[in-house]
Amino acid sequence: MSKNAKLRLVPLGGLGEVGKNMMAYEYGNNIMLVDAGLMFPENDMLGIDYIIPDYEYLLDKTDRIRGIVITHGHEDHIGAIHHILGSAPVPIFATPLTRGLIEVKLSRHGMLNKADLRTVQAGEKVQIGPFAVEFFHVCHSIPDAVGLGITTPAGLVVHMSDFKFDHTPVDGWPTDYAKLAEFSQRGVDLLLSDSTNAERPGWTPSEMVIGPALRDVFEHAPGRVIIASFASLISRMQQVADTCVITNRKLAFAGTSMVDNAKMARKLGYLSVPDDVLVPIDQALNLPAEEVVLMCTGSQGEPSSIIGRLSTGTNRQFDVHAGDTVVLSSHPIPGNEEPISRTINRLFRRGAEVIYDAIAPVHVSGHASQEEQKLLINLVRPKHFLPIHGELRQLKRHAAMARELGIPAENIVVAENGQVVELSGGELKLAERVPGGYVFVEGGSIGDVDLGIMREREKLARGGIVLIDLSIDKFTNRPLHEPEVITRGFITSEDAGDLIPAIRQRIKELVNGGGLDDEKVIVDAVRSFLYNETKRRPMVFVTMSKA
Amino acid sequence: MSKNAKLRLVPLGGLGEVGKNMMAYEYGNNIMLVDAGLMFPENDMLGIDYIIPDYEYLLDKTDRIRGIVITHGHEDHIGAIHHILGSAPVPIFATPLTRGLIEVKLSRHGMLNKADLRTVQAGEKVQIGPFAVEFFHVCHSIPDAVGLGITTPAGLVVHMSDFKFDHTPVDGWPTDYAKLAEFSQRGVDLLLSDSTNAERPGWTPSEMVIGPALRDVFEHAPGRVIIASFASLISRMQQVADTCVITNRKLAFAGTSMVDNAKMARKLGYLSVPDDVLVPIDQALNLPAEEVVLMCTGSQGEPSSIIGRLSTGTNRQFDVHAGDTVVLSSHPIPGNEEPISRTINRLFRRGAEVIYDAIAPVHVSGHASQEEQKLLINLVRPKHFLPIHGELRQLKRHAAMARELGIPAENIVVAENGQVVELSGGELKLAERVPGGYVFVEGGSIGDVDLGIMREREKLARGGIVLIDLSIDKFTNRPLHEPEVITRGFITSEDAGDLIPAIRQRIKELVNGGGLDDEKVIVDAVRSFLYNETKRRPMVFVTMSKA
Repeated sequence: MSKNAKLRLVPLGGLGEVGKNMMAYEYGNNIMLVDAGLMFPENDMLGIDYIIPDYEYLLDKTDRIRGIVITHGHEDHIGAIHHILGSAPVPIFATPLTRGLIEVKLSRHGMLNKADLRTVQAGEKVQIGPFAVEFFHVCHSIPDAVGLGITTPAGLVVHMSDFKFDHTPVDGWPTDYAKLAEFSQRGVDLLLSDSTNAERPGWTPSEMVIGPALRDVFEHAPGRVIIASFASLISRMQQVADTCVITNRKLAFAGTSMVDNAKMARKLGYLSVPDDVLVPIDQALNLPAEEVVLMCTGSQGEPSSIIGRLSTGTNRQFDVHAGDTVVLSSHPIPGNEEPISRTINRLFRRGAEVIYDAIAPVHVSGHASQEEQKLLINLVRPKHFLPIHGELRQLKRHAAMARELGIPAENIVVAENGQVVELSGGELKLAERVPGGYVFVEGGSIGDVDLGIMREREKLARGGIVLIDLSIDKFTNRPLHEPEVITRGFITSEDAGDLIPAIRQRIKELVNGGGLDDEKVIVDAVRSFLYNETKRRPMVFVTMSKA
Repeated sequence: MSKNAKLRLVPLGGLGEVGKNMMAYEYGNNIMLVDAGLMFPENDMLGIDYIIPDYEYLLDKTDRIRGIVITHGHEDHIGAIHHILGSAPVPIFATPLTRGLIEVKLSRHGMLNKADLRTVQAGEKVQIGPFAVEFFHVCHSIPDAVGLGITTPAGLVVHMSDFKFDHTPVDGWPTDYAKLAEFSQRGVDLLLSDSTNAERPGWTPSEMVIGPALRDVFEHAPGRVIIASFASLISRMQQVADTCVITNRKLAFAGTSMVDNAKMARKLGYLSVPDDVLVPIDQALNLPAEEVVLMCTGSQGEPSSIIGRLSTGTNRQFDVHAGDTVVLSSHPIPGNEEPISRTINRLFRRGAEVIYDAIAPVHVSGHASQEEQKLLINLVRPKHFLPIHGELRQLKRHAAMARELGIPAENIVVAENGQVVELSGGELKLAERVPGGYVFVEGGSIGDVDLGIMREREKLARGGIVLIDLSIDKFTNRPLHEPEVITRGFITSEDAGDLIPAIRQRIKELVNGGGLDDEKVIVDAVRSFLYNETKRRPMVFVTMSKA
């Protein structure tokens, strides 16, 4: 370890979870990326499909990127890979299942044959530029997840992505404690650790508790069981499949991403479902209801998901009805509590029984809680600590915990996305800020929709709009026709019957008052007229032509 | 109790909590209302100030309304009184503090001298039409809250509004268990009970736990302490004031509603703050920081509240800065998790320390949890059960609990707002549905903004708008000027530089193609042009005039 070596860590993204979707390691002229995921839009980001990290910082340095390491196969860690590969066609390192899920994604975007994918097994070591990366197994809610031990010229860094210390995981493969202890003996200069559950006391329950809860539901449900989850929650698929075997039900996956991911996980041996248990969805819909389990997406209340469409009665292939039992088997991503709650109410209204985590343990978190986070810090005994994967409030809490465990305050840094952190000369400190915003993906547009546009949308939605079109005779300055008035999101058509003639009258008074050359005069007059009438402030647009 | 007597219960409101904001009791030609509160808009109901129950059902029956009984002084129980009184000037029955808070509200709307307010003490009985109403004390997060024992010709109904079984409440006055037992002995035909926390196991902690938590914060805070809460959380004001006395800090209330409510509660003897502890806000701002506690609104992350403005640096009277400790002392109303989380992150970003319920017990729920809900049912032993105050998911859970306690399933009814329930001939059953929607209040408009308008607003916000104005020469069918194109919430001004000329070009091609008489043809063409270019779908408006 060289004394003057300077390692730079650059968490990229917006105001969401720090360093979760993408973290750059930079040493001299070498960059290694860890993860390339997407964020889901919050409830009030209308129109947005998804959000990717702002990697403008990397755009003039793509020739320095030596590779991308992916820690596991969830969307928030792999969902932006096809965007990044467009700018930087570099090797991607991942364990077999993670690689398989990346392949599913890339082939959907027609980019599979352009990608340089390299399989790494947990326990292996790979040299990526100046970074010697040791992959070690961690438990999470997907198999084949890894943490990273990164030996750099500035010291040894342990990068814990999403993890929990589950002693009885679904695949029987606990977190590699021995490797963590070994790093500790070597001396860890910097630990990065998952802060998601830093506000949650105790120890996250093992995935094992879900099995009996599912069994209880499957055995007592009078008809079909419909499980809502994420398409990449492979461990949950396994538990559902196992419970189908025990309770003599057939399992069908619904939805492209769920079907594709399950197929890939089965092919690679990470998901074991007997051939006679797995049936296609159209076959399942023709079986007696009490013999069927359907597994689909929509656990976040997304209106366009299968569960979302079932709850509003707009799903094409099948409906939900009395006798069905819907199980929401995943956690609300922060900000989704409200749409999820609406979905639960709607499903009840359609006569279904709905089971969710407040009723039975059909979900557990995939992230370490406070006692596990503390155990990790004491296992690794790092010199410096950088909390990642969480919003500022969780990072602050995680940092406070590290201080309580004896890590000196000056060795702990809390940084948000876009804030460069440097490890150099035995010190961890804040360096400069780089662009670290949201890149909104909407339709075919990547980054074309910015925060300014989002603010305009909110303004449109707060008050609605009033459009006025006016043609004026250039000789007489009189209206050539009745002013045309269109409103949206402002008044009902009944109220429009009274208000629109009044608006027209007001405009005619103005025009007849004479000397009217300016659209802005009309905008202002209509605005204040509408405010007086309704005490509301729609956006007003006037187009005026003279002929 | 007459055998053919028919009591009708009509919960009024939208898809929110059932019967919380207003419940009508109807017997023959007599109506009694319980509570008249408002709802806060959800995060995606843009522009809405607040929501009141849809009482269209009552409008042609106002002469039958014998009175309004108010159970306690929180906004969701008193906030719509001034609207109701406008339609039905009937007597209002309330305990002294509740009446005081209603007076504060009515005088703000200039309606105090028009209202017929009647004070009732807990323990008293009042005859309201055919309803003999016994008021009895319950614990909640505000003093002077009551439950109701309502003797009707169809039987005895116990109406539990918001309550908890706190054994050590702030005012030392526990729930009146003896009265509940007495009702039980008389025989309760129907129990209505608060379902808010039906998904929460165990027993809600006593308000008492907050005192030591606040003391710990006040003693260790290096500078000012800023407490965020609701303006009507009078019990919390008392706890903050008590802790100020112990820790030698001065207390100032900020914000009109907080100041007015505190003044009224002090005047009536429900809030005890020594004169030398309470100081005006401008005086507090000039004292040494470590001697000051400010209490204000904004615990729900509302952008226009004091805490909301502090978090964005837009508060006029004072700022938040390093050294300040902000305490969020209230629960997130469902749907507010996201704005609250953003507010916490912003306050941290400004350098403040932020304390909230995940960090220290600075808040407890004011509502009974499952064990208390069960105790109530077993204390009262009602023949029939109607869960209220909760969304459908909580009502379903509460009903399941009542079944587990031995109430026959056929004696339990789950009804949403607008669903009439009848108690008659010893049976509880569903009757007809009446209008039960949301009435949105926005600016000066009450009910003018409806769900159709809300849907239009969402559509505006999802894709933004493109406005096109076109004048065509009526003889040559050629454009008289360049088509005017305005966009909002769709593209940035940089992108507009490329796209708008392309839109103009597309329109000119269409017009020159000839025979163009219809705005709709242009709308469709521009829509599909924009979809091809951007894969997005803004709302397109065209105004065309011929001259």
